Amino acid sequence: MSRILFYLDGYSHDVWREAFRAVDPSVEFRGFPDWGSPDDGPAYAFVWEAEPGLLKRFPNIKAIFSLGAGVDHLMRDPDLPKDVPIIRMGDDGLKEGMAEYVLMSVLMHHRQMPLLATAQSKARWQRVFSRPARHVRVGILGYGALGKCAAEALKPLGYNIAAWSRSPKPAEDGVQHFTGEDALNDFLARTDILVGLLPSTKETEGLLNFDRLSRLPEGASVINAGRGTLIVLEDLIALLNSGYLKGATLDVFPEEPLPADSPLWHQEGLLITPHCAAITRPDTAAEYVVRNIGRIEAGEVPENILDLGRGY
Amino acid sequence: MSRILFYLDGYSHDVWREAFRAVDPSVEFRGFPDWGSPDDGPAYAFVWEAEPGLLKRFPNIKAIFSLGAGVDHLMRDPDLPKDVPIIRMGDDGLKEGMAEYVLMSVLMHHRQMPLLATAQSKARWQRVFSRPARHVRVGILGYGALGKCAAEALKPLGYNIAAWSRSPKPAEDGVQHFTGEDALNDFLARTDILVGLLPSTKETEGLLNFDRLSRLPEGASVINAGRGTLIVLEDLIALLNSGYLKGATLDVFPEEPLPADSPLWHQEGLLITPHCAAITRPDTAAEYVVRNIGRIEAGEVPENILDLGRGY
Repeated sequence: MSRILFYLDGYSHDVWREAFRAVDPSVEFRGFPDWGSPDDGPAYAFVWEAEPGLLKRFPNIKAIFSLGAGVDHLMRDPDLPKDVPIIRMGDDGLKEGMAEYVLMSVLMHHRQMPLLATAQSKARWQRVFSRPARHVRVGILGYGALGKCAAEALKPLGYNIAAWSRSPKPAEDGVQHFTGEDALNDFLARTDILVGLLPSTKETEGLLNFDRLSRLPEGASVINAGRGTLIVLEDLIALLNSGYLKGATLDVFPEEPLPADSPLWHQEGLLITPHCAAITRPDTAAEYVVRNIGRIEAGEVPENILDLGRGY
Repeated sequence: MSRILFYLDGYSHDVWREAFRAVDPSVEFRGFPDWGSPDDGPAYAFVWEAEPGLLKRFPNIKAIFSLGAGVDHLMRDPDLPKDVPIIRMGDDGLKEGMAEYVLMSVLMHHRQMPLLATAQSKARWQRVFSRPARHVRVGILGYGALGKCAAEALKPLGYNIAAWSRSPKPAEDGVQHFTGEDALNDFLARTDILVGLLPSTKETEGLLNFDRLSRLPEGASVINAGRGTLIVLEDLIALLNSGYLKGATLDVFPEEPLPADSPLWHQEGLLITPHCAAITRPDTAAEYVVRNIGRIEAGEVPENILDLGRGY
């Protein structure tokens, strides 16, 4: 029997309790604030944006599972226990959702939907011609598990795909790899539709500034489904307004929810989605957590364990 | 050497002339109005919305190629030669374009982009949860070459796919087939996202009226990328306004261009594209025409030859 200390503010815990029961009825599910006493013995934390200091007060936590692929919400806790393994979410539902979102967004920019949405708002029948997919160069910026799934979803359509990552990745068919900061500008220069899937770290904050975005060819589009800190938004807006960039889709923002008075909502050529590209699904996430608790109990290494040195 | 009599109003013929030259330099390309004399000997017509009576005046035309998959533009000519084979466009560019468009549109309705577009216009951060693709039932209404390509593009995402056609199709993995008018209501009742790909014929005109559309489950979405005559638009609008249907994407209309004063432009939940789902591409179309001229000259049956009894 494993005990799970669950934290997710603003949502009912019932669907999560049921999901764990369906996977393993022996799991004891405790939703915050009913975590019981810190002395209750071994437990696993499964949290999203838990209040700072909370995890430290439960010294018997054996591992911390993040409810999302990002762990920046944990890193912001100055009292985060240092010796407890942290496991990022990697459930199949999250991967499927991201693959769908990236495929949809790439198709929308390839087929010029932002321009057609503007035309519709002006009651204008504006014929557009789009290039064949094999002449459209998609660039995936950040090539972890989610980036790889996005590439697999894009491949059947014949897009010309490249991926950039900090560390080298194994060669694969249908994806040209770029590695390290030195290769970033070359990667941007060959990319018509950029897909941001980077985590939030010191290195990625503000990475896509005016200079970097200007390395993209004229008429390029930008999609960000990673973290909102990646892009300097004023620079993106300036390049959209000048017509250098053709369009953008943003799912993530430095401040979420995006404030109602933000001018971004009404920016022409910009599509906004409310951080819903990939939402952790209770059914597949419960399977994932139970499977990895099993690995930990068996003395094995869990999937997607955090590398604290890299910060993701 | 084959002679091609080409008709396409409002567009430069140069790109088409070049495309044929690239495929077969021996082709003699004549763009309207420079078709020469009706006595000039054997020729192939390759036309889109040619003026009525024109084709009849050239008795040496051995076959008529349509520039699009639809042939309703030919059927409207009361003087259409009756004994000349008609060949519908089936080039790979057209199929790729339609597969992209259908995949994009299905993803957009699955991931609730019409609702999110409305939320954006109101500066509203509205979280949405979308079902896993395997719980989304896509129904392809009209299952010819384009419908089949659309299904192949949808399959990798795991959608629950069905197809309806007038005549039986060979069984295939991953697609449930419905055949004939008797099965249409059952097909609609199991369909969350309907994809219209039917040709314009007497049988399909106004097929999707209030009664038929109401057979879809509540919350369903409708995509039409076939012909604009399929849907009774007042009925679609009524069902969108009542909230019974969640959204729609229309690429085709009874009157094109859609008039600027049409209320459709401003209909909430409706996405409009200007008949650009699948545009015939000069390079792949020229290949297709030359290949099928070769078949005709060799006494073989060309691809996609029109069945005049069915009208498509």
